[in-house]
Amino acid sequence: MSEYVAPIRDMQFVMKELAGLDQVGQLPSFGDATEDLVDAVLEEAGKFANGVLSPLNRAGDQIGAKWADGKVTTAPGWQDAYRQFAESGWTSLACDPEYGGQGLPKLLSTAVMEMWKSANMAFSLCPMLTNGAIEALVLRGTDEQKSTYLTRMVSGEWTGTMNLTEPQAGSDLAAVRTRAEPQADGSYKIFGQKIFITYGEHDLTDNIVHLVLARLPDAPEGVKGISLFLVPKFMVDAEGTIGARNDVHCVSIEHKLGIHASPTCVLAFGDHGGAIGYLIGEPNRGLEYMFIMMNEARFAVGMEGLALSERAYQQALGYARDRIQGTEAGVRGGGKVAIIRHPDVRRMLMSMKSQTEAMRALAYVVGAATDLAHDHPDEAVRAQQQAFVDLLIPIVKGWCTENAIDIASTGVQIHGGMGFIEETGAAQHLRDARITTIYEGTTAIQGNDLIGRKIARDGGVAMKAVIEQMRAVVVQLNDQDSPEFRAIRVAFAAGITALEEATDYVLQTYGSDIKAASVGAVPMLKLFGIVAGGWQMARAALVAQQRLGEGTGDASFYQTKIVTTRFYADHVLSQAPGLAYAVVNGAAGALALDDDQF
Amino acid sequence: MSEYVAPIRDMQFVMKELAGLDQVGQLPSFGDATEDLVDAVLEEAGKFANGVLSPLNRAGDQIGAKWADGKVTTAPGWQDAYRQFAESGWTSLACDPEYGGQGLPKLLSTAVMEMWKSANMAFSLCPMLTNGAIEALVLRGTDEQKSTYLTRMVSGEWTGTMNLTEPQAGSDLAAVRTRAEPQADGSYKIFGQKIFITYGEHDLTDNIVHLVLARLPDAPEGVKGISLFLVPKFMVDAEGTIGARNDVHCVSIEHKLGIHASPTCVLAFGDHGGAIGYLIGEPNRGLEYMFIMMNEARFAVGMEGLALSERAYQQALGYARDRIQGTEAGVRGGGKVAIIRHPDVRRMLMSMKSQTEAMRALAYVVGAATDLAHDHPDEAVRAQQQAFVDLLIPIVKGWCTENAIDIASTGVQIHGGMGFIEETGAAQHLRDARITTIYEGTTAIQGNDLIGRKIARDGGVAMKAVIEQMRAVVVQLNDQDSPEFRAIRVAFAAGITALEEATDYVLQTYGSDIKAASVGAVPMLKLFGIVAGGWQMARAALVAQQRLGEGTGDASFYQTKIVTTRFYADHVLSQAPGLAYAVVNGAAGALALDDDQF
Repeated sequence: MSEYVAPIRDMQFVMKELAGLDQVGQLPSFGDATEDLVDAVLEEAGKFANGVLSPLNRAGDQIGAKWADGKVTTAPGWQDAYRQFAESGWTSLACDPEYGGQGLPKLLSTAVMEMWKSANMAFSLCPMLTNGAIEALVLRGTDEQKSTYLTRMVSGEWTGTMNLTEPQAGSDLAAVRTRAEPQADGSYKIFGQKIFITYGEHDLTDNIVHLVLARLPDAPEGVKGISLFLVPKFMVDAEGTIGARNDVHCVSIEHKLGIHASPTCVLAFGDHGGAIGYLIGEPNRGLEYMFIMMNEARFAVGMEGLALSERAYQQALGYARDRIQGTEAGVRGGGKVAIIRHPDVRRMLMSMKSQTEAMRALAYVVGAATDLAHDHPDEAVRAQQQAFVDLLIPIVKGWCTENAIDIASTGVQIHGGMGFIEETGAAQHLRDARITTIYEGTTAIQGNDLIGRKIARDGGVAMKAVIEQMRAVVVQLNDQDSPEFRAIRVAFAAGITALEEATDYVLQTYGSDIKAASVGAVPMLKLFGIVAGGWQMARAALVAQQRLGEGTGDASFYQTKIVTTRFYADHVLSQAPGLAYAVVNGAAGALALDDDQF
Repeated sequence: MSEYVAPIRDMQFVMKELAGLDQVGQLPSFGDATEDLVDAVLEEAGKFANGVLSPLNRAGDQIGAKWADGKVTTAPGWQDAYRQFAESGWTSLACDPEYGGQGLPKLLSTAVMEMWKSANMAFSLCPMLTNGAIEALVLRGTDEQKSTYLTRMVSGEWTGTMNLTEPQAGSDLAAVRTRAEPQADGSYKIFGQKIFITYGEHDLTDNIVHLVLARLPDAPEGVKGISLFLVPKFMVDAEGTIGARNDVHCVSIEHKLGIHASPTCVLAFGDHGGAIGYLIGEPNRGLEYMFIMMNEARFAVGMEGLALSERAYQQALGYARDRIQGTEAGVRGGGKVAIIRHPDVRRMLMSMKSQTEAMRALAYVVGAATDLAHDHPDEAVRAQQQAFVDLLIPIVKGWCTENAIDIASTGVQIHGGMGFIEETGAAQHLRDARITTIYEGTTAIQGNDLIGRKIARDGGVAMKAVIEQMRAVVVQLNDQDSPEFRAIRVAFAAGITALEEATDYVLQTYGSDIKAASVGAVPMLKLFGIVAGGWQMARAALVAQQRLGEGTGDASFYQTKIVTTRFYADHVLSQAPGLAYAVVNGAAGALALDDDQF
């Protein structure tokens, strides 16, 4: 099994030459984010990912987290790695300096997050969930909650969890039944059971801060009656000193296909008299607060898709270079060669590589837009960037994760029979990737978000603005006259046309026949992902061509970008018209059967 | 976890109304294969699959086969199930009556094999590998080998294995190093190590008959110096009485992603003085004999793709009917509904269902063609059918197995979070399916076989004959005028055009630039699979329309066939032009990078 090496050169290319690091660095809040600082952070994060997290990934999978008597023991090396992770300041990278954070741009923390997730996805889930809880407290916590809990979560002293799901309330949070009873002292007693709680119990820190969705006694039915509560594992006084054990207990952990080292907990609240909790923000607005954090969480899961694709690619590439098998096609009397010389292995590697690069480019561009949306001095720019981020979040989440399953599976295929043997490590990436299209909203939920809230609601304004930007890139491509750029232009232009057709269908149908529109939701999401990825790849190829013309930088690196974009155009963008066809024509057949005709 | 129920009605439809069971039944060798007999066999096999094999599938996965001190203990219930399997005569269904077989048509044994593989794929591998060894002995065994070994393998008393792979010789059998030293008594001593030997050791029978590829001392290098040997686990006298232990030992079994109950063995031959073996057929023709059996073996693995897709579909459908979550799109104030009501779940189920039906139709048609190719009285028909079988074998193998991975993954997706929990059972189908695109020749090897031996070698004659048959179906579709049939016709016609374009590219390129042609091999295979599946679905829809017009049979069943074909047209056939684009345009980008630019 190969260890991970952070693709820093590629990350720098995307950050600096595609995503506008210079623009982000000039934002008032990021005066410190000089290029030198960014490079230094990437370097250090790469060392930590490669040297500390990646070597634990395999044992984490094989041994996993263990449950006994309500306690969870994390996998070998996890405790030490977490201590180092917190001590090195990685928990606080993008957090607000007011609470001890380093306040670095999202664009930078995005690249760093990619590294954690490539190196050891199961480990990365602990800080990721904590980050979600941190955001909620920053947005809606009281000063006391902030000083007692938030600062310790930013420093990594304590971790956080998000308690949404219940057995009957998975994608449908309206069905949440956990209840909160007001107490005389202003606190609440929480009763209920939550499932699928990532790092809901562990041995990494002295305390765990659970954020819990529950209903007040007088709450309205459905989504408008859900409130958000803070429930610590151990009670805490105003100085943060740990006191009595609270009545929240891990009654079991799940036996899963992947991410074995990430404990997925069933948490029982209030089985012994009630778990003490504190209201966050206002009553009955819990789901709204969750929605505020949702972009962040979905973006992070999208990054898992990218990160696992990169890891699977590195693993497969290493194998393809080492494994000697067969002779080269068309070479008579030649010796045995490494399988990277075989055309189909090369096709598979290019497919993994080009899609991974497309995902990285798109995700980082969205990360940079998030920085601009938060901190740009011009309100109009902020609004415009936020609309872009909102539109693209379901794509980063849904497209990157769907791709990751295919890409990790291709990685297994490149290994041949060895890919099916667990010792090789390729299969783990597929097993780990398989959760990413499910949690934080399935791909269908992303697709419905895309066609409903993101396209239909504003009458396609944000979408058409993106299509305009894409068309501007086609104009730039017209200036280039080489077989590579012609191939890129043809496939990209066809992709845009397909995207526009499908968008028009969604706009025409969503209001009048939501079921018909919804059949197209996931194909539409994939179509948009493919074309948006192609857009960023086309931009990358244009930048590369410019550098080659100037004679600046590493010529081989830039030539590779053009070739990779061309491959993406021929093999990936070429799927766009077929997806548009399914969006526009596919509803009737999907909806015609009665339930009992299946 | 749901148990499997054999889809007998669908199997009968394909056998009788698409694959020409009546024609097969009239072949001289199958005088016994009346419709009544066929129905009775399907009924009994369905009971065995559902009642005996399916209930063992989950424990087989969770506990698996265990190795200790050279012995393999099969999973709980395996021994009893195998005994019943052999006693019921299932090992001998399609075998030659001369050796105790029942001599039933391939078309029937295909349907029965689908059931074993759906119910319990890991179990099914044991009789499948035995069948391969049986075929080799039928074709090239001496009379003595036949009477001693073959009859006991047909009866199921002993099992067989195929020993091809070595650590350095996976896809490239030219690299086989196992050696065979001639002995004075006409036998050989075999020395070497074989890996990935399915059921190479087990506790189901008293003896195991290993067929082993090895080199004679004076053998030429490469593929022309490989001979085939019979190496029993225990020596046997002329009466079949078991004697001394032979020097072949299982030194370990693999820890795999799936098919845990199928022991994948490392076998050491000759570590204690030499394993006694007997030459099968002539020296140095071992690989040629393997090729004779290859169609059969590849077809069987293709059936695994179909079978696991059917199983995954049944599991997902059961869950989608039971799981209550959310309200129906577009219905205000409605109650919670089963998720089968959600448009995207419906899309996913239709995708699974329609592709599974397309695979079944194509595979059974190829099964029937195999019967005709073997037994039709007219030599010209035999030759024509054999060319059809040869052309389609890489499609049945490669396309059905690639589909199975996607379909099993879709099955996981329909389960949402529960799909990632192993107890649910959905994930097992994905893990089991993942081997099918690898063993018996990876998808790339199938693709290269398709474009080289099957398309380029005869100048596209066999392929163009198939395209002609497809076009004849388009003419029939022209007679139907309904939205369903218009949709089917449009997508199918576009698919045929795409297939023809890609075929022309292969024919133009294969001789002059084999690398460029080879980049397109796997996209070409998928394209052909999709269009060939669409062809059979279109035939099914036409038959259904005719039955509906006649007012014969179950109207709902036939209506469903038309809807399912229409879905397939809009969502699956619509991918064909994009794949043709990749075949025709995709070589340059795939081949342009230097190895170190990856």
